[in-house]
Amino acid sequence: MAKAGANVIKVEPLGGEPLRLRIGVGRGASLPFAMLNSNKRAVTLNLKSERGRELLIEMVKRADVLLENFAPGVMDRLGVGWSVLREVNPRLIYASGSGFGLSGPDRDNLAMDLTVQAATGIMSVTGFPESPPVKAGAAVADFLGGIHLYAGVVTALYERTQTGRGRLVEIAMQDAVYPALASNLGFLYNNQGEVPPRTGNRHGGLAIAPYNVYRAKDGHVAILCVLESHWTNLLTAMGREDLKTDPRFVGNAARVENLAATDEVVESWTQTLSKHDIFAITKRHRVPSAPVRNLFEVMHDPHLHQRGMLEWIDHPDLGRIVVPGSPLRFHEAGSIETTPSPRAGQHNVEIYGSWLGLSGEEIDKLREDGVI
Amino acid sequence: MAKAGANVIKVEPLGGEPLRLRIGVGRGASLPFAMLNSNKRAVTLNLKSERGRELLIEMVKRADVLLENFAPGVMDRLGVGWSVLREVNPRLIYASGSGFGLSGPDRDNLAMDLTVQAATGIMSVTGFPESPPVKAGAAVADFLGGIHLYAGVVTALYERTQTGRGRLVEIAMQDAVYPALASNLGFLYNNQGEVPPRTGNRHGGLAIAPYNVYRAKDGHVAILCVLESHWTNLLTAMGREDLKTDPRFVGNAARVENLAATDEVVESWTQTLSKHDIFAITKRHRVPSAPVRNLFEVMHDPHLHQRGMLEWIDHPDLGRIVVPGSPLRFHEAGSIETTPSPRAGQHNVEIYGSWLGLSGEEIDKLREDGVI
Repeated sequence: MAKAGANVIKVEPLGGEPLRLRIGVGRGASLPFAMLNSNKRAVTLNLKSERGRELLIEMVKRADVLLENFAPGVMDRLGVGWSVLREVNPRLIYASGSGFGLSGPDRDNLAMDLTVQAATGIMSVTGFPESPPVKAGAAVADFLGGIHLYAGVVTALYERTQTGRGRLVEIAMQDAVYPALASNLGFLYNNQGEVPPRTGNRHGGLAIAPYNVYRAKDGHVAILCVLESHWTNLLTAMGREDLKTDPRFVGNAARVENLAATDEVVESWTQTLSKHDIFAITKRHRVPSAPVRNLFEVMHDPHLHQRGMLEWIDHPDLGRIVVPGSPLRFHEAGSIETTPSPRAGQHNVEIYGSWLGLSGEEIDKLREDGVI
Repeated sequence: MAKAGANVIKVEPLGGEPLRLRIGVGRGASLPFAMLNSNKRAVTLNLKSERGRELLIEMVKRADVLLENFAPGVMDRLGVGWSVLREVNPRLIYASGSGFGLSGPDRDNLAMDLTVQAATGIMSVTGFPESPPVKAGAAVADFLGGIHLYAGVVTALYERTQTGRGRLVEIAMQDAVYPALASNLGFLYNNQGEVPPRTGNRHGGLAIAPYNVYRAKDGHVAILCVLESHWTNLLTAMGREDLKTDPRFVGNAARVENLAATDEVVESWTQTLSKHDIFAITKRHRVPSAPVRNLFEVMHDPHLHQRGMLEWIDHPDLGRIVVPGSPLRFHEAGSIETTPSPRAGQHNVEIYGSWLGLSGEEIDKLREDGVI
């Protein structure tokens, strides 16, 4: 939102939000915080104090959107839930992000990326058949939830241009994950309710072949054939035109029936070459493929930097780091310069002073009283 | 979009889009198609014919948004790219979804969920340290791309209410994935560029403990402690108050230093109980956890059905199936009744006749000529 031009104020408890606190561990949390908080301003606010809630309400009067991801019911118990704030500002979009939603029997289950990956079945279909269930290594439940919340907010803003009224928008991470399991759920349907297996790197519904990650001399490479031309092109690339009429491999349905044999044909070729050579050859023959890259390669990817999706910045606390821009790219809109993630409360004076009109003395008093 | 109230027309080549064709395999693709195409109308259109392109342009004149996910450059080569269509309709939002974007050296790499998972590094951090890289079992690159595209389109529609002008909106799946790797990239930063390992079910940045999936008597359960109170509550739940002052386990930093010992404490308890008992106990003690569910359980989840996120419908081709609603929930907006996914070209007469004003004879002629 900040990178799309919104004026975003991050409201945190007095010590800062949990992700900041994890920085103390010295392992893993400082860069994530910086990645996700560029171009925001930050204030601290104690919502457990009466004066803190008054300040929130003053901000809500002036705001378009309030976005919160407390557990369901917390904002209501604090006295600043949707039913209160809609009266304060009838044009307010109130956006709630939670793990399982604001209704239903599982509403109060505690949600983090890990528990949502367990509950939604992602784990049950990730990994190799012979290994235990395993999560997706990226925090996909968190981020599918987050971008759906963005989508819901902007939809409500668009609606408001016609109605003049705000709305409560709700996103549950669990809901946001479900559609991404379509291929795997397809297996369930086509096999009379048989539970979809973990398929390793094969297609989640075991409905496409070849579709796998194959050993190269120096790593791994992903190759798949969605169209018949991909397969015939791959045979040409591999110098295996002799197989073009082999009935085991003519048509995707036949290859799916002969999954292991199909994979063997491909891997007997890939294991003789480096992953970059395989990629170069398959690209030339218009076969979808990609070398499996590690995160060092990705963070330093010339393509992502050249496109401006990744950027080196000098961060006041972290030094020279790589941060992402926005995946939403609006052509001819001009770019918004990156401002490093703020410290907790960095903009207290700016927001409470210039925006809400409090005096320096009043702000000092709020600080002394533990309100900000 | 259709579930948010948009009038969505799916434009397919004459045989139908590739996901339909996969239905022929009889394994995996029919339910996915139905899941993703409720409430849309479908027309067929041959964009390689002059008359086909004319019909597209007639639709664009009347439309708010054109959304396409051809490889970069295909629409331009067909003569119906952004530079042409913006002249046809200056209010048009032209949305392009691709794997690697419309610019940069990797622009023309062929992209599918599998290759993007390889290229973005998701595979490199998914799975167990001792196993090969493995993809996330859900099609997370596809669906992160898709919902970002929704977000971009609606942002541009919102902007248009102020400017009256359309815009080219671009989403690359690769860009959409990168932020979800924040925790893993944090490891890279905090370990002087050391490549993040596959951590199985542990935290991607190895920055939180406990954070894992543990064996139960009858399956697996995810448990994590983000706040210190989660840990002390967990010790109470496990009857291990004796460890509350054990220096190996006081504070997240200490537990991260003693990862294996921390996991052992937790698993020595979980393996004595069923996953549902563990969940019930941890829930009572306010510790984030979830049983690892399979997709049969998820598809039949009472919570998801009660909330209306999942719904049984009678599909004309597939029979009684479960389809998802929208994860975007707009309170008090009323619900949009589910219409089953259409057949290819099902709405040709409605769209080309009623909307574009062609006569029955003209439509017959288009069909004879292989245009629709």
